[in-house]
Amino acid sequence: MASYLVGDEREFMDLALIPPILGGVGLITAFIVYMLVKRYPAGEEKVRHIADQIHRGAMTFMRREYSLLAIFALVLLVLIILFDHLGLRTGAAFCAGATASALAGWIGMYTATKANVRTTTAAQTRGAAAALSAAFFGGSIMGLAVASLGLLGLGLVYYFFGGNPEHAHHIHGFGMGASTVAIFSRVGGGIYTKSADVGADLVGKTEENIPEDDPRNPGVIADNVGDNVGDVAGMGSDIFESYCGSMIASIAIAATIGISGLYELFTVEVEESQARAVLMSLPLTLASTGLICSILGIVIVRTQSNRDPALALRLGMLVSPTLFIVAAYFIVTQYTDVSWKVWGCVLAGAIGGVIIGLITEFYTSGRPIERIAEQGKTGAATVLITGLATGMQSVVIPILSICGIIWISTELAGLYGVAIAAVGLLATVGMTMAVDAYGPVADNAGGIAEMGGLGEGVRKITDSLDELGNTTAAMGKGFAICAAALAALAIIAAFVEAVGHEREAAFILELSDPRVLIGLFIGGLTAFLIASITMSAVGSAAERMIEEIRRQFREISGLREGLAEPDNEKCIQIATNAALTRMILPGAIAVFLPPLVGFTLGAEALGGLLGGGLVGCVLLALTMANAGGAWDNAKKFVEKGALGEGHLKGSETHAATVVGDTVGDPFKDTSGPSMNILINVMAIVSLVIAPLIA
Amino acid sequence: MASYLVGDEREFMDLALIPPILGGVGLITAFIVYMLVKRYPAGEEKVRHIADQIHRGAMTFMRREYSLLAIFALVLLVLIILFDHLGLRTGAAFCAGATASALAGWIGMYTATKANVRTTTAAQTRGAAAALSAAFFGGSIMGLAVASLGLLGLGLVYYFFGGNPEHAHHIHGFGMGASTVAIFSRVGGGIYTKSADVGADLVGKTEENIPEDDPRNPGVIADNVGDNVGDVAGMGSDIFESYCGSMIASIAIAATIGISGLYELFTVEVEESQARAVLMSLPLTLASTGLICSILGIVIVRTQSNRDPALALRLGMLVSPTLFIVAAYFIVTQYTDVSWKVWGCVLAGAIGGVIIGLITEFYTSGRPIERIAEQGKTGAATVLITGLATGMQSVVIPILSICGIIWISTELAGLYGVAIAAVGLLATVGMTMAVDAYGPVADNAGGIAEMGGLGEGVRKITDSLDELGNTTAAMGKGFAICAAALAALAIIAAFVEAVGHEREAAFILELSDPRVLIGLFIGGLTAFLIASITMSAVGSAAERMIEEIRRQFREISGLREGLAEPDNEKCIQIATNAALTRMILPGAIAVFLPPLVGFTLGAEALGGLLGGGLVGCVLLALTMANAGGAWDNAKKFVEKGALGEGHLKGSETHAATVVGDTVGDPFKDTSGPSMNILINVMAIVSLVIAPLIA
Repeated sequence: MASYLVGDEREFMDLALIPPILGGVGLITAFIVYMLVKRYPAGEEKVRHIADQIHRGAMTFMRREYSLLAIFALVLLVLIILFDHLGLRTGAAFCAGATASALAGWIGMYTATKANVRTTTAAQTRGAAAALSAAFFGGSIMGLAVASLGLLGLGLVYYFFGGNPEHAHHIHGFGMGASTVAIFSRVGGGIYTKSADVGADLVGKTEENIPEDDPRNPGVIADNVGDNVGDVAGMGSDIFESYCGSMIASIAIAATIGISGLYELFTVEVEESQARAVLMSLPLTLASTGLICSILGIVIVRTQSNRDPALALRLGMLVSPTLFIVAAYFIVTQYTDVSWKVWGCVLAGAIGGVIIGLITEFYTSGRPIERIAEQGKTGAATVLITGLATGMQSVVIPILSICGIIWISTELAGLYGVAIAAVGLLATVGMTMAVDAYGPVADNAGGIAEMGGLGEGVRKITDSLDELGNTTAAMGKGFAICAAALAALAIIAAFVEAVGHEREAAFILELSDPRVLIGLFIGGLTAFLIASITMSAVGSAAERMIEEIRRQFREISGLREGLAEPDNEKCIQIATNAALTRMILPGAIAVFLPPLVGFTLGAEALGGLLGGGLVGCVLLALTMANAGGAWDNAKKFVEKGALGEGHLKGSETHAATVVGDTVGDPFKDTSGPSMNILINVMAIVSLVIAPLIA
Repeated sequence: MASYLVGDEREFMDLALIPPILGGVGLITAFIVYMLVKRYPAGEEKVRHIADQIHRGAMTFMRREYSLLAIFALVLLVLIILFDHLGLRTGAAFCAGATASALAGWIGMYTATKANVRTTTAAQTRGAAAALSAAFFGGSIMGLAVASLGLLGLGLVYYFFGGNPEHAHHIHGFGMGASTVAIFSRVGGGIYTKSADVGADLVGKTEENIPEDDPRNPGVIADNVGDNVGDVAGMGSDIFESYCGSMIASIAIAATIGISGLYELFTVEVEESQARAVLMSLPLTLASTGLICSILGIVIVRTQSNRDPALALRLGMLVSPTLFIVAAYFIVTQYTDVSWKVWGCVLAGAIGGVIIGLITEFYTSGRPIERIAEQGKTGAATVLITGLATGMQSVVIPILSICGIIWISTELAGLYGVAIAAVGLLATVGMTMAVDAYGPVADNAGGIAEMGGLGEGVRKITDSLDELGNTTAAMGKGFAICAAALAALAIIAAFVEAVGHEREAAFILELSDPRVLIGLFIGGLTAFLIASITMSAVGSAAERMIEEIRRQFREISGLREGLAEPDNEKCIQIATNAALTRMILPGAIAVFLPPLVGFTLGAEALGGLLGGGLVGCVLLALTMANAGGAWDNAKKFVEKGALGEGHLKGSETHAATVVGDTVGDPFKDTSGPSMNILINVMAIVSLVIAPLIA
């Protein structure tokens, strides 16, 4: 052993303070970036007023969402504390996880809705490079907040419980807290954004024939709020829980893995307790390294963005993971005496993530979208059939990549390897998330420019930023699915180990055991059920939105002519209420189904449920995200005139692709992303209750 | 033991001749029914000419399909014979299974395309009751052919190989033959019927504004051929392979099940070999009983059909299973000394099938379709979203029912119980299939009446018959999915037992084994991939059909005015060629993927593949069948005027529901039903190669 674990336990625990301290440093960096953003001018009165409405709408939604979530969390907390094996410690970890996740979402939303208007104004007064900087800084704060709060929160929980084998399992509570907040944020945010989007588009663009983001449309502010609620807060909580989940899974597996597997991971002879301690702290060490690499990446993007914005963004996305992989090699092999094989898993995870991102980009931009657009000539039905077929086909390579990661990492380092692969994929989440959250900020900036009537030139700059954001968003979605799948898999592995550990016997989830099989079926159907519920929710919320917007156009005289103000507030209220009421059922199913199955049908059925849920969720997530993305871009492809003059806006071909896009909206932004968290919530809740049902 | 197995082996083998003899009796009955159908007059010249075109089109397709299949089967046969453990015996069984399945399809198609025109003429000359009789008789021949050829073929194979434990596994070849024919028939038939349907409808109804089945439409004969190819031959081969698969699985499990489980199923002490022999022959005995009950049911429908056609049909559907369950009780408990628990499994299977049928009916006719129709008012996109959500939601109760069947039957009789539950569900297949095949015959009769211009009165009768057929068809689809799921599950169980038996050690498919997990993912993705391929196939085949029909309307002068004949032959050719070329890839994937995975990644991965495939296929099959059925009926609901005068044909609301219906076409008739066979093909191929990969 080089240096990591020499000395006594005291010294080890001091070392364990490094991740939370780094988390604190990350937060300070985020605050500095925020001050940089604030230095950009907020613009003229009219624009500021619009931005303010968006900001207030977003904050109102968050406040009401978190109030509701607090009640739900309190109920869970009481339940957790009531159980002997969990008690106050798991409860405390749960609260920490929930708070950290909520805080990350809040910070991200707060700053994103400050950065959007500054991006608009920068585009207006200083040009494209400054606008990109403002948007990217806005996104960076979200990225840094996610990574830093994860390290700070989980690092502290680990500091308190990680040193004592008897208390280590309380750490899982942190993941449960994060995941609980995440499922509600993701589902609620997804319903909000799509009900506003579908409603505003159907009445505005189709019935009233006014352009997107037209200030006369009463639904347009709600639509812009929705972009933040869904793509910033929702996406952030999604990535946050995968990030923490992968680390928690690594810790859990390291704590319970069999002796022989344990020793194989070291190049020198070590004591069992020492070996476990090293492996348990490794994910946090890797994540800390990843955070530093992300900060470096953000600095590079900033310094390069004056030359070529698109290149700068791609450079940042490349540089952080590359730096991280190199650094990880030294940390694994030099600093800890862990075998290079563990590093191999990190590499496998990172490469797999890139492949999936690229495939997602292909299916949502390449030949497939041209084929879908072509089908527009024979009507909406063929657009739908081709889009669905494309989505279903797009699962093949990503799933095979995930299988490849599973194969390589288990060959190299057993189940611990799978968890570390997930950590490897997610360690530079600060950078990934920054690029991802950049998209909605740029999108909002464009909306504000349009609503503020800032003219063609500004709009052109924001459009180019937005387009760049669409590409990175597609890759980000693929990344999120892959990360969620690996994290869930790792947590499931940890669950199996934990039950075996409790029972003091191998916990065998045999596929031909009827309980496992029943669980498998129930897990699969849960994915379909949640997809169905969330899709219906968007449908009916959009319907209410449509009615309200139609009513305003009918009843507010002068609105159509731009002489009267629309009642934006009312539309925001409708979206908020719909999202809050309709997020409860899917969230509750996700949280309560595992204990229901576990306590009635047993741990075997619960294991089956997680297996079936994993496969079902990943398949649906990929299908829905890619079909939705493909339809969206097929519509844009037609709008660009790629099929010729006769098929532009207003043509039947275009109308057919609009139907595809509208069906794709809940696919790619509500139901699809919900799948990522659904399986993780079910997995982490199972891991928490493992000691109770074993 | 009462009487079944007293005496020597000779006597046992004599008893084993009863099922094939009964199969022969069933075939003779089918022939008698055919003579009864032939006694109905074929009608006037014009109508006969149309019917003849349909008949010839169907027979041409079958001939070409079977020629292609013969080549494919020959390749498989050579491969089978090359392997030591399989050899000539498995090869012979494979040929028998393929031939029996093909023959059943051929008989069904031949007679259905004779019965359709006789139904039309009966409606014209003798009224509704006679028309129902003709249509039902036409369907009955298919039902009897499926059940009888199954008993005859499998019975003979069992007679030759069943007595010798070393040769028993050769029986599996029969199932593989049946399933191979089935996947091609189902996929090919599905592509044929929907490319013709979508093509004829899009040009005829939407562009040319002529009614359905108008003789001026060049695609209309192809469409009517397609109904037979898809709904008679395709459905028949689907049910045939589930029917044989469930019996083969029971036989295989009985041959390899552990001793302790074996003895628990008997109420008296028996010798091992005797016990195995009884359990192995039980499925054939039950199916023989089921065939007798089906014939009785058919007679009852015939005698009652003069009074109330709808009632007669429902009575028949009720009476056969009830008779069978009562008879099964006596056979199980009195005749064989097998525990009543085995009968309990029969009961569970039968009841589960009814529940799933009823749920299917609800989702494709009740509140859900009203909701979808309502959404038509806000456009095609909301119709699509709601329909997809409905389809996904509709999986819940059927899957829970399947779980219930698994739970009860394994509690009662272990894995053997699951297989026997499937046998119980499928034993009265003669009746179920008769009612199911009645639908397309009635549908065709209506088409012929329309094309022949027989007037309102005749069309009204055929429409009422058709409507009755739609209800029974919805239940039939649910039944087929449930049957396929249970049969596949039983075969998978048999596969697990077989591998364990070969290895002489328990074969444990552990979910946390990475190979199993990878298999699970690959199985799930295969379902999505095949669904995608078949949907794309319909899309592109329909496109060619649309071009051809448009061309004819453009180039054949006088066609639109009814002065010139369309070139029907050309459309039939297009559908035939499209179906034949595009059925190869999905069929080949289904047959070759299991050996590919088995030989490269091992038996564990193959087991995982089957698990993931089962869950994926059942979920997609239910979603697609029910969403498709719901869209279809939502459109009809709007057409009936249920939403008021402003939403009839020609309105935007109606157009929106037509989009849903068109998307639903490949869902419910191509991709969805392919799922049933896909999982069964993969399972039975795995069972056949189990000795090689163990």
